[in-house]
Amino acid sequence: MTRTVYLNGEFLPEDEAKVSIFDRAFLMADGVYEVTSVLGGKLIDFDGHVTRLQRSLDELEMVNPLSRDEWLAIHRKLVEINGIDEGMIYLQVSRGAPGDRDFVWPDPATCPPTVVLFTQNKPGLADSPAAKKGISVISIPDIRWGRRDIKTTQLLYPSMGKMLAKKAGADDAWLVEDGLVTEGTSNNAYIVKGNQIITRQLSNDILHGITRAAVLKFAREAQMEVVERPFTIEEAQQADEAFVTSASTFVMPVVSVDGAALGDGTPGRVAARMREIYLDEMRKAAI
Amino acid sequence: MTRTVYLNGEFLPEDEAKVSIFDRAFLMADGVYEVTSVLGGKLIDFDGHVTRLQRSLDELEMVNPLSRDEWLAIHRKLVEINGIDEGMIYLQVSRGAPGDRDFVWPDPATCPPTVVLFTQNKPGLADSPAAKKGISVISIPDIRWGRRDIKTTQLLYPSMGKMLAKKAGADDAWLVEDGLVTEGTSNNAYIVKGNQIITRQLSNDILHGITRAAVLKFAREAQMEVVERPFTIEEAQQADEAFVTSASTFVMPVVSVDGAALGDGTPGRVAARMREIYLDEMRKAAI
Repeated sequence: MTRTVYLNGEFLPEDEAKVSIFDRAFLMADGVYEVTSVLGGKLIDFDGHVTRLQRSLDELEMVNPLSRDEWLAIHRKLVEINGIDEGMIYLQVSRGAPGDRDFVWPDPATCPPTVVLFTQNKPGLADSPAAKKGISVISIPDIRWGRRDIKTTQLLYPSMGKMLAKKAGADDAWLVEDGLVTEGTSNNAYIVKGNQIITRQLSNDILHGITRAAVLKFAREAQMEVVERPFTIEEAQQADEAFVTSASTFVMPVVSVDGAALGDGTPGRVAARMREIYLDEMRKAAI
Repeated sequence: MTRTVYLNGEFLPEDEAKVSIFDRAFLMADGVYEVTSVLGGKLIDFDGHVTRLQRSLDELEMVNPLSRDEWLAIHRKLVEINGIDEGMIYLQVSRGAPGDRDFVWPDPATCPPTVVLFTQNKPGLADSPAAKKGISVISIPDIRWGRRDIKTTQLLYPSMGKMLAKKAGADDAWLVEDGLVTEGTSNNAYIVKGNQIITRQLSNDILHGITRAAVLKFAREAQMEVVERPFTIEEAQQADEAFVTSASTFVMPVVSVDGAALGDGTPGRVAARMREIYLDEMRKAAI
């Protein structure tokens, strides 16, 4: 079935959704994005994503072309038209297509942003086999730019990282800078030691995960001790367990780091429990 | 007049040249580019650019969809159709549009690269008023990713740098990492001290400028001493003169660095002479 996608005010068949070759996301990666999950046909943490979108746009001095309610209406309409029960909605805003290529930003008064949204249908997203088995990660150097807190489309290195992991027979990669793990290619990284959940503190070095914020809140409510500090690969390998979080994988157990199995090599109790709490709570709050 | 551009085998009016929203350059900055100048209707250092394109594609394990002669034919046809006497030709290759978004690379057998070329008409490009006056630069931190030797479309920070320069009343920015100048936002950076031309050595930290290679060759032939090493902003401010090089600005004198005038604040002799030699020699070799 052909998806219906949203492009600049129109709902279109996916193969008709095209943008100018002068679009600044196409020529210069001058765009930001969000991914919101859908469970039971409802949006998970929608307001978290719209809030972070605003922050990304503000950091790049881009105009937010739509209100929270307009974003919501488009998300809901795409879910409905495409019959999404479980899956994701991808949203991208670029600085528009000024009709030529120039490093200097176009005037937003004459060059409106390009707005794209599309669904990804993923039946079984919540009941993921990977979550039951856990994933393996390798470590690679973090050579991304210095503003990873802005969710831009500069995703070439994360994409290269996934390919490096694949070639190494692993599922994903953790990025390491100055000897310390920053985060995963498209997720935040955590280790568990006793009653402690350890994850790197927020800064320009990592994405300010919407799922991260929710999981840390639920962890504290469940009487876990949350410690926000960086950790090394060696510390991760000696941890009781590990996991990653993202909007589309929720809480995903990590069972091996650079070939070293964590614990008995199966998903840890804390990761499994945090996944369960996260899914329960977020389903309840879904809109 | 509407430009004619090239997109995936077709010559099209510029406003009809559109790419899928699933193009990997649009969603993930998974593309590389080149810019070749045109003087007197001929291509400047065409083979240098095609050689570097191949290198960028190789580094990203992307397929080069066209041969040197096919690239040349498209460049020449665009020059002819659009009547370009002086200007640039922009060329971009992305990893194509696989029909959905995924960090994992698509199979090149089923997902051909997206190829885009367009002209930019710039009468007076060689006889530039800026070259007679010189440009001012400010310094900003270099927070780009670690593989600046690959000419990717991840140009958001260089674009932000140009805007920071503009806001500061300057013409461009030099990027500084660990206290040392790497390069300009879209050019290589040089200082001149006595008979020495000093510019940072090639590595993953800077773009391997095609114009840089030609200018250093001509400098050596003109009995200048070329020293490839990094320099600081302070050293630049105390230099006799400074300049930048790029395919579209050739050799451009820098007359002020972070507000400090170099020499008497006018373009230096070496920069002016190197620009003259470069333009003379490259016009002769143009194809």
